[in-house]
Amino acid sequence: MYTYELEMKVRDYECDLQGIVNNSVYQNYLEHTRHEFLLAHDVSFSDLHDQGIDAVVARVQIAYKNSLRPKDLFLSKLYVKKEGVKYVFYQDIYRKADNKLCIKAKIESVVTQNGKLLNGLPVFDALIQE
Amino acid sequence: MYTYELEMKVRDYECDLQGIVNNSVYQNYLEHTRHEFLLAHDVSFSDLHDQGIDAVVARVQIAYKNSLRPKDLFLSKLYVKKEGVKYVFYQDIYRKADNKLCIKAKIESVVTQNGKLLNGLPVFDALIQE
Amino acid sequence: MYTYELEMKVRDYECDLQGIVNNSVYQNYLEHTRHEFLLAHDVSFSDLHDQGIDAVVARVQIAYKNSLRPKDLFLSKLYVKKEGVKYVFYQDIYRKADNKLCIKAKIESVVTQNGKLLNGLPVFDALIQE
Amino acid sequence: MYTYELEMKVRDYECDLQGIVNNSVYQNYLEHTRHEFLLAHDVSFSDLHDQGIDAVVARVQIAYKNSLRPKDLFLSKLYVKKEGVKYVFYQDIYRKADNKLCIKAKIESVVTQNGKLLNGLPVFDALIQE
Repeated sequence: MYTYELEMKVRDYECDLQGIVNNSVYQNYLEHTRHEFLLAHDVSFSDLHDQGIDAVVARVQIAYKNSLRPKDLFLSKLYVKKEGVKYVFYQDIYRKADNKLCIKAKIESVVTQNGKLLNGLPVFDALIQE
Repeated sequence: MYTYELEMKVRDYECDLQGIVNNSVYQNYLEHTRHEFLLAHDVSFSDLHDQGIDAVVARVQIAYKNSLRPKDLFLSKLYVKKEGVKYVFYQDIYRKADNKLCIKAKIESVVTQNGKLLNGLPVFDALIQE
Repeated sequence: MYTYELEMKVRDYECDLQGIVNNSVYQNYLEHTRHEFLLAHDVSFSDLHDQGIDAVVARVQIAYKNSLRPKDLFLSKLYVKKEGVKYVFYQDIYRKADNKLCIKAKIESVVTQNGKLLNGLPVFDALIQE
Repeated sequence: MYTYELEMKVRDYECDLQGIVNNSVYQNYLEHTRHEFLLAHDVSFSDLHDQGIDAVVARVQIAYKNSLRPKDLFLSKLYVKKEGVKYVFYQDIYRKADNKLCIKAKIESVVTQNGKLLNGLPVFDALIQE
């Protein structure tokens, strides 16, 4: 089901006073995974921005299942579907040591050009598996 | 409807290469607003943690309506309901200049003591308006 | 001696697993203070960037004297001198409750236009007190 | 001269509105490198903290030579010396593509146990090469 997977490691500065990764940091992990997924297909988020094309997050749903802690390795996995004008990323994060699901997320994004909503982008459409 | 409101200002370092506040930063804004709301009622997130009691986010839904930009002032508003064992925070962020809705969020949290799920916490229950 | 002062409050997400504000976060506080100082004089860091003019940090020295903790209010103070082509910001952070010095910093910055080093900028020079 | 080296990659969310890695983020890179260096020698910053032992940064000097940008790979290198009670980390960051020096840093740290300054720690002393 997943079409991309990135291994990462918790960094101590990402943990808060509860000693676990702060909730907001998972959005960093998820964003970085999407951008690396794009790069793996020769699509660069920052280069697109320089051309006036922006992928913009419209809606985020995240279920926090288990907390990541200092030194944890984890796998950030995704697949993507097109639903109307939206590119919907289904993204899950698993702790590597025991394969436990930590994060279950659905990220809905749209593409804009100079601020105007596009129906989609051919380079993105090419990444959607039928 | 809202029972608490906090005025904040975008800081330049919170903006990313798109020149707008990065998506993950809104979770920082929302968390800080919840903790200030608690403090306004003499409940301290960090003191509770030192007593082994943690408010833990279980689920987040965020709709991104309009982007905040450098120098923007904004109002972060909330109200909270109890739904089963969950404290559900309804949190919206409005740009101050034009009162435009930027963020519409629903944050579901639970309370744990030494890692064990509690039915609730009297100091939290006291914050729920009937 | 100080020519600008900004009151801020520690946010819980800025604290790390040691329960104190993470070292890197003070650079956020110092940057935000500089940018607010500029704004107080009608100079906008982000607007300058849009015109191709960037204030760039060349060198940072920070002495960490006392740690800030959750709920702490603090005063971030600065004065600035011109030394050659550099604008040197002397920035100190004091905990408000007891006026204890927390951070003593010296931030050396230069101004570039489209990547080319400038001797200075009239709007910046106007901020230097003789 | 260097005794440890870690390869990392810029993440887009670490870049600010100037399109380059924000100054404060390098402190994150430097901290993560130190902690990974310790882990490579079976010393865990977070485990030490749980035992009441904290490595605390006392002083930071960072020279910003060249900016890292989206997609850049970089090498974060260090060696460490003991100077009195201080462990002094000399840390440099090089862009991988052209081996250009980006960051030259000196981080002075001390060790405390339950808040009391120690002369040092045997597990740290073992990491210092003569």
